[in-house]
Amino acid sequence: MPNRSVFFVSDGTGITAETFGNSILAQFPALPRHVRRPFIETPDKAREVLAEINQVADTEGKRPIVFITLVDDAVRQIITGPDCRGMVLDILQAFVVPLEAEFGVKSNHRVGRFSDAAKSSEYNERIEAINFSLAHDDGQSARNLASADVILLGVSRSGKTPTSLYLAMQHGIKAANYPLIPEDFERHKLPTPLAPYLSKCFGLTIDPERLSQIRNERRPGSKYAALENCRYEVREAEAMMRRSGVSWLSSTHKSIEEIATTILRDIRPDRLIY
Amino acid sequence: MPNRSVFFVSDGTGITAETFGNSILAQFPALPRHVRRPFIETPDKAREVLAEINQVADTEGKRPIVFITLVDDAVRQIITGPDCRGMVLDILQAFVVPLEAEFGVKSNHRVGRFSDAAKSSEYNERIEAINFSLAHDDGQSARNLASADVILLGVSRSGKTPTSLYLAMQHGIKAANYPLIPEDFERHKLPTPLAPYLSKCFGLTIDPERLSQIRNERRPGSKYAALENCRYEVREAEAMMRRSGVSWLSSTHKSIEEIATTILRDIRPDRLIY
Repeated sequence: MPNRSVFFVSDGTGITAETFGNSILAQFPALPRHVRRPFIETPDKAREVLAEINQVADTEGKRPIVFITLVDDAVRQIITGPDCRGMVLDILQAFVVPLEAEFGVKSNHRVGRFSDAAKSSEYNERIEAINFSLAHDDGQSARNLASADVILLGVSRSGKTPTSLYLAMQHGIKAANYPLIPEDFERHKLPTPLAPYLSKCFGLTIDPERLSQIRNERRPGSKYAALENCRYEVREAEAMMRRSGVSWLSSTHKSIEEIATTILRDIRPDRLIY
Repeated sequence: MPNRSVFFVSDGTGITAETFGNSILAQFPALPRHVRRPFIETPDKAREVLAEINQVADTEGKRPIVFITLVDDAVRQIITGPDCRGMVLDILQAFVVPLEAEFGVKSNHRVGRFSDAAKSSEYNERIEAINFSLAHDDGQSARNLASADVILLGVSRSGKTPTSLYLAMQHGIKAANYPLIPEDFERHKLPTPLAPYLSKCFGLTIDPERLSQIRNERRPGSKYAALENCRYEVREAEAMMRRSGVSWLSSTHKSIEEIATTILRDIRPDRLIY
């Protein structure tokens, strides 16, 4: 698909259009050029985008793919009408109409779930969760661990911080994270503050080779980064988690999204409607 | 829609199914019960989910809505077949088939874009961006501001931290953030370290009433949280950004997603293919 552009046109942020469009496009080889056009909420703005789509169609000699999430009929019809020389994939309409029939109600043509979200209690919980996760990053504070939904454990640089921030941002989950350090391995015990909360602990481990590589980027040539030391820490951490009955997974070949999804599936925090 | 359950069934994390499904459901009143079933990648697992869907259909007396992203034909056909008593919305198939015709190639039925992502350079850039944003939170470090893609400015608690983490996590953008503090207002000048980077600065402001409310939750009754002080800081910060030609918006009624989308649209960082 060389010379093929993809438009994401939305009356909101376009996040739905882009997330969805990307997962469709991942089914095909090659990476097309992305053109994002968020906040298209008036006919005038829609006509500007239409002109742009048609110009790209002429320049590239192939019709651009256009993923749209446009709720307002007047705005949508400008892009979906006969003047448009793109291939329009209307990801709302394809499913909203059958659901109206199923539910026996008309859809309310609401624009932008993210905007309404800004005032909701759910949104405020997300912001609170982000602040909580930042304050409880890397064992900074053992205070309020009782109010954590999840506590991530693992050796330094095993992926705890990005995962806990993702859990907070995406799911409003209060995720503390707690490092396992050489002192813990000498004592052969999980850190004492965690003892009351084992049921909400989840461990991350990582291949020692990969760990050594990551640590070497930070502190080249240090004992901390040495492969031998990484092997020791990972082996001890895994043994400790196994003895304590803490679930864990290896982050080596997994993305943050996959790690977070697995944790939620296994821990099933009370606050998440699962 | 009381007593109506919605399933999100995916062979990956289910993030696409859920993001998309939620934006569809937001067009209708009431909030249905969510059932997430990620990592359904074998026929056996699919049959378990099928049994669950049918049981819910019987219990609730209404067919559940089932959003699926299942790439493997054998797995998908178990859920989409005649035995399923849910209303299945197959969000990949509806668009993949027309695109195969358009591109003139078969789709590669690839499972899980997030999994492949874990090894890509794009993914590593995201992780690096998260680390950068954490290290440059709240003006902690003026080092490496040259390598920031975006620098967020604003008074304390105007929404800089969640926004910069979101930019990093979602878009791999290195977003530093820098607080505007009373000393800056007395000097009537933006902090000196920012001077070389005005073109990548973006300001966040906030209604003083809302700011006072947020700050009072942290430090009740303090001068920091007093409405009069919040009015002063916001007025000075806005005047300073206006004088320096820095773009800004009010975070008061906007979600993180909307703020981030606006920033990317206006700043257009080099690293983002826009």
